[in-house]
Order: sequence, then structure tokens, then C-alpha cells
Amino acid sequence: MAKKIYLKPTLVTVLTLVALYAGFTVFLSHPPPSVSTLSDPSSSRSLSILNSGDPKKTTVRVYMYDLPKRFTYGVIESYLRARGTPNAPFRYPGTQHSAEWWLFADLLREVRLNSPVVRVLDPKEADLFYVPFFSSLSLVVNPIRASNFGNGHVYSDEEMQQELIDWLENQEYWERNKGRDHVFVCQDPNALYRVLDRIKNAVLLVSDFGRLRADQASFVKDVVLPYSHRINSFNGDVGVEGRKSLLFFMGNRYRKEGGKIRDTLFQILEEEEDVIIKHGTQSRESRRMATQGMHTSKFCLHPAGDTPSACRLFDAIVSLCVPVIVSDFIELPFEDAIDYTKIAIFVDSASAIQPGYLTSMLGGISEEAIVQYQRELKMVKRYFEYEDVNGTVNEIWRQVSMKLPQIKLMINREKRLVKRNMTSPDCSCVCSNHSSSVGPLF
Amino acid sequence: MAKKIYLKPTLVTVLTLVALYAGFTVFLSHPPPSVSTLSDPSSSRSLSILNSGDPKKTTVRVYMYDLPKRFTYGVIESYLRARGTPNAPFRYPGTQHSAEWWLFADLLREVRLNSPVVRVLDPKEADLFYVPFFSSLSLVVNPIRASNFGNGHVYSDEEMQQELIDWLENQEYWERNKGRDHVFVCQDPNALYRVLDRIKNAVLLVSDFGRLRADQASFVKDVVLPYSHRINSFNGDVGVEGRKSLLFFMGNRYRKEGGKIRDTLFQILEEEEDVIIKHGTQSRESRRMATQGMHTSKFCLHPAGDTPSACRLFDAIVSLCVPVIVSDFIELPFEDAIDYTKIAIFVDSASAIQPGYLTSMLGGISEEAIVQYQRELKMVKRYFEYEDVNGTVNEIWRQVSMKLPQIKLMINREKRLVKRNMTSPDCSCVCSNHSSSVGPLF
Repeated sequence: MAKKIYLKPTLVTVLTLVALYAGFTVFLSHPPPSVSTLSDPSSSRSLSILNSGDPKKTTVRVYMYDLPKRFTYGVIESYLRARGTPNAPFRYPGTQHSAEWWLFADLLREVRLNSPVVRVLDPKEADLFYVPFFSSLSLVVNPIRASNFGNGHVYSDEEMQQELIDWLENQEYWERNKGRDHVFVCQDPNALYRVLDRIKNAVLLVSDFGRLRADQASFVKDVVLPYSHRINSFNGDVGVEGRKSLLFFMGNRYRKEGGKIRDTLFQILEEEEDVIIKHGTQSRESRRMATQGMHTSKFCLHPAGDTPSACRLFDAIVSLCVPVIVSDFIELPFEDAIDYTKIAIFVDSASAIQPGYLTSMLGGISEEAIVQYQRELKMVKRYFEYEDVNGTVNEIWRQVSMKLPQIKLMINREKRLVKRNMTSPDCSCVCSNHSSSVGPLF
Repeated sequence: MAKKIYLKPTLVTVLTLVALYAGFTVFLSHPPPSVSTLSDPSSSRSLSILNSGDPKKTTVRVYMYDLPKRFTYGVIESYLRARGTPNAPFRYPGTQHSAEWWLFADLLREVRLNSPVVRVLDPKEADLFYVPFFSSLSLVVNPIRASNFGNGHVYSDEEMQQELIDWLENQEYWERNKGRDHVFVCQDPNALYRVLDRIKNAVLLVSDFGRLRADQASFVKDVVLPYSHRINSFNGDVGVEGRKSLLFFMGNRYRKEGGKIRDTLFQILEEEEDVIIKHGTQSRESRRMATQGMHTSKFCLHPAGDTPSACRLFDAIVSLCVPVIVSDFIELPFEDAIDYTKIAIFVDSASAIQPGYLTSMLGGISEEAIVQYQRELKMVKRYFEYEDVNGTVNEIWRQVSMKLPQIKLMINREKRLVKRNMTSPDCSCVCSNHSSSVGPLF
């Protein structure tokens, strides 16, 4: 059973929303945008002022689509119904992919202090267009044991994806720039997978690029999001006294792709002293044990999963348990602002599976150095707290807003490109020094 | 003979600099940075305040290297000496590639109003490092008829390039991030060509990407500069009364690469009524004729040269002569801010060489539409005026400063990348809809 996100008392005033449609027990107080408010430019202007405090022309203006409700609240409804609990309190279910909820709720807030973007209710005023489909929740509406809605209709995520894009392709502002100035959240590596080629121009908010082709997504065009941490933050001080075990890992031993390394790591590490390594799947009990382990270990292992990213990294960060990342192709959130070498240890897979390598290397790190890592972790922790008013949500919008000049360039450029004989795709790139080749890219 | 840039009276106060070194007749009043000012952090802070008015932490801070003088003033000295006029007034010679002079002079100014970057004199405080080598002038120090300095030493641009990078590679801040946070101006398409692979991490200020490989430069990493216009701006009003001829072109008929189209265009257009098309090379007389032609024509042709860009486009813009661009692979300056379809007409090469196509298409454009193009040209003209205090120089710094988040991301990312088995270069890209292929990029 998935953990629910229980709203903290301090957030109730911010996040209480009214979902004003039939059939719901609702207790939320801000109405979602409706056609009537959309057509009132004065309300748009006044909201702009409310939102940004000082809405200079240079603030990035975001329009959130008033999607048919089946793409937002309706996904939650379907999720609850598929679990036979349609009358359960109406809440977005707790998952590691809840960014879609936080961003949606944030844009609905009347007062949005220190946000790098301002919401506008008139699309004519917008720089960017946010599409608030709950694409990650939609993937898991149907429990693993296929269920139905009782009325014979089985929820189909694939149909939802197609319908969303069919709907968008009828929108004036989508067509205008072929989606280049649109923003989608697809935090689960499989979210929106059926329609990726139709939305590849847009800014995609993703967890990694493991399942995306180089012409669909990249950190130049898109934004890497952190997963929501699933275990509680460690609120104690820095130090190693309460952290008796050297290295902790708990998670699925068997994974596909890069995650195949996990089984090898288990074999090497399960006999080691000072190392706690356990096979475990998502459950309330395993989360309790993981919390305990991450709060009492010096280092926390983060091997690749089915894709290079996994929520465990963010659990480790908020636990002040120094992450040991064994995932050669990982991309990390907010890397312009965060120097991850100050908060984590990176080990290439080939070295990590040498018997004795990890424990000997980690055992050689002084207590002083560990405490220094913890201090740095404390300083960047807010970036990984979706609940923090100065946390993940504002940082995501900052990242999105920094894409605007490039988006505008691409839009203007595409308007004037003429028919050309191209021998390779028309792409503009930035390359690292770690390229294996110095030959032509394409 | 190349035209000199004569400082306008309004700019004298801004650009009068003192080049305080031996052997020069100098009349410029701001000393270049010296080792003594570099070691005084308080002067750096006070300069920061002077420069930006309100130097928030978010202002991008640029350190300009105090290069050995042979790379800056020394290039001008060599240029004058190679022409047998070592005692001529000490001025940067007028060329279409004078951005290197304007940026250097700008950073030397004591008061830099509205600049998007602040100069710092302490490299420890810098976000970015500007390398003010006059790389384009260095290319043309030796006149076409090989000359020497009278003492048997022939100036070698290639040696200068190598010496510059040898010097840089001994600098702490170059080594720190392998040049990723450095900025070079190489406006001539051949500037710095010998050392491109050693500086490809840096932000390159270029005219186009015609001679650069995709892993050396791109509009994601680099900035496209306008050439300095070489003919006078048209200061009259919009309108077609004084513009009797339909289409004007004057320039070299014979060019390499994409410029081969020029000869075909000559053949097609030289018999057309209302079209003035002339073969001409750089001279004072041809500039006079070009000024006359561009100020009295409705449209000005811009065919590709040896590379996709050419200064003629910017001459046309400041002449309010609507540019007709026939250069399939052109990249344009400041395209996030300028929608070029509002100020220019783009024609693919294949269509342009169909007899009658250009004149018939242009002849069909109404006077009203032409005047509308001219109004738009007037609005963006300042972007192409290096002399304007709110013009090209500030805009170049704005473009450079917008690269900073990506530069920081690349720097942080490279620190933590581990050894990996890569089957293709490690590049992150953004692709246009005009790609000929949808397959894998690499």
C-alpha cells in the first residue's frame, strides 16, 4: 500500500484546495481556474501582482492549462476507485513521483512568495504553458493485479496520454510553437512514454534520461527533478556518534539494465562487517526499517535501478547519510546550484564490484571528513524538500524559467529556417570532456 | 585600405583610454589593469559598485585577464608597423570584426551603466573569465602582400594563438575548470582556428558556426555576434519614396562553399530591371557606393559568403533596407530577443536561383508591408550598434551571462563524472523540428 502525503499543519493554509466537482468529498479552499476567470483580464493582472510581489516585465509568466478534470483530479479519483476506496479522503497518494501534485498545487496558490515565476490567467500574457496532467500517477492507477472501476471500464493510461495530446493539438497556443514553450511533468521514467515524440519539443520535467532518446530530452532542454523522499528527514545534528554502521542499503536486489549491478553488490557486501544490506520492496514496514538504517549509518549506497536514478538518493540526503552513488549514467537535479562532490561519493561500477573496494575506501574516510559531508548535506537539504516554501518547488520553477531564452531562440529560429539539405539532425549541443570520441557528433 | 573607426564625440568620454606603454602615441585616459590593482580586493569591491549600480549577488561577475600586452595593444602596434605606419594615431583599425575592441574597451570603462555584467579585479570573485586577445585583428596583421617588421621578424598569428593558450594553460583559473568558464572572442570565422580544440569548452563569441565542428561550438554553448556595420546608418524616416530600386547587392561575386551561389545570383539578377547588383571588393569608394545603394533600395540581398554570415546583413539593417537572406545555414545574433521574420525575408537557395523568382516575389510585397518591415528594423537597430550605450556590447554581455547556469552545471557535472563505457560523445542537445532524421543522434 502506498504511503499518503499527509499535509502538515503549516501547509494547510497553502494547499487546501476545493475540488469543486461532483462526487467528491472535498475540503480544499481555492477554486481551480474556470472558464469565467480565464476570460477576465483584470483578475489575471491582479493575480499577477499577488503572485510575484513585484511583477517586473522580466518575471517569467506561466499559464496553467485548465485541462479537462479527468487529467488532474480525475486521475486521483480513478486511483482511489481502482483500489475500492472511492470515499477515502481525497488526497494525492504518496508516491516518489509527486512533483506533479506539488507544482499543480503551487500554481493554484493565491499567494506565491519568492516564486521565480508568476502565474497568469490569460494565455496571451504567458511566456510558458504548464500542462498539469498527473502523468506519473496515471501510470499506476491500475494496481498490479488488474482491477476495474466496477462498471466494466478499465482505466487506460495509454488512452489518457493520447487523449491529452489530441486535446492539446487542438489548442491555439500549442500549435503556435509546436509545443516548444510548453512544460510537462513526467517524473516516472515511463510517464507519457507513448506520446514522447509528440511532446519532445517541450520542456520535460524528468527524473533521468534513461529511457529517452537524445533527440527527445537532454539536460540542455529539460529539467531533472528530485524524487520526493519517502522516509522522514533526520532532524538531529551532524556527527557520527549515533551512526554505528558504515554502509546501508535496502532495496530491490533484482533490477533491469544498469540495475543488474545490484545483485553483484549484494554478493560482495552481504558478508562484510559494518555493512547492512537488505533486499526489500516498498511497504510501510520496509520504510520504517530504511529510516532506522539511514539515520544510523555513515554512508548510504545508491546503486542504479531500472534507470540511473532512484528515490533512495534523496532519502539518504535528508537522512544526512552520505550517499555513495554507483550509477555511471546518473543525472542529478539542480546541478548548476549544487556541487554533488561535496555531498556524495561517486564510484564507477567497475570499481564498486571489486571485492573489498567499497568498504576499504569508505573505511578510510575520516570522521572529520564525514561530518564535513554532513554539513554540506544540511546546507542543500532544502532543495529536496517539496514542502519547504524555499524548497524544491521554487527551485524547479527557477530551472524552468532559465530555459526561457533558449526556448525563445528556438521558436524564433524555427520560424525563419528554410528548406535545407541536411545530412544530420539539426541539433545544437554542449559536450563534456568525458566524451569517448572527438569525431563529428552526427 | 581599411576604414578606421573614428570615435564619435558622444563616445569620447567613454572610450578615451590611456595605453600607457612605451613607444606609443596615446591619448586614451583609463589605465589598463595592472598587477598592483589586481592584488587590491577593496578596489575590486568599489569597482563592482561603480559598475552595476546595485551589485546584487546575482549579477554575473567577469574577470578580464591582464594578458601580456602583445595580445592586445601589441596586435594593433604590429598591424600599424606591418603597414609601415608605426607612428600613425593609435587606434584599433576599422574592420567588421571589431567586437574584440568594443568588449575590451567596455570592460576598461570606469562607469558601466546598465551592463548585465560587473567587472571584478580579483579572479577569486569571478564567475567568468574574459580573454581579451584581439584574435581577429591578429589574423590580418600581415597585409596580403607579405610584409615584415623591418627587423626581419614576420608577425605570426599562428604563433600568437599557440603562445596565448600556452600562457593560459599555466593559469590557475584556466586549469581549474579546463576553460569551461572562460570567454573568447573569435569573430572572424578563422580566428583562433589553430587552437580550437584546446578552447572548445569555453564560450566562444563567433559570427557563425561555418568552420566549427558540432563538438567545438553551437548556439547552446556559444554566442553569435553581429559584425560591425561598415556603412553609415540611415537616419531618415521609414518610407519608400527615396527608395527607387527594388533590390540591391554589392560584394564579391566569387566565394567558396555556400558562397558559390553568388555567381548564379549575379547571372540571374544582373539583367533584371530595378535590381542593382555589382561586383565590388572592400574599398572606401565601394563603401560609398554601397551606402548610396542601401539607402535608396527597398530590399538588400544577403547571400552566403565563404561562411553563412557576412557583414552586409548588418549594413542592410542599419540602412532600413529590408534584408533578403539567401544563406541556408545562417545563424543570427540575439535570436532569443529578435524575431528575424519581422525584419527580413528568408529565401532558400534552391528557390532563389530560379530565374524570376526573387524579383517577382519581392515585387509582390506591398509598400505598406515594406514600411512595416522598416518600422521593425528601426526598433531593433540598437542591437547592431556597437557604439550605442544600450546597444550591441550590453547585449553580448547579456547573452554571455545567460550561459552561466549551464556553465556551472557542466563544471559541477564534470567533477563527479566517473569512468564509463560510452559508445558516443557525452553531449546534451536541443534539436529543431527541421531535422532531416528522427533516428538516434549519436
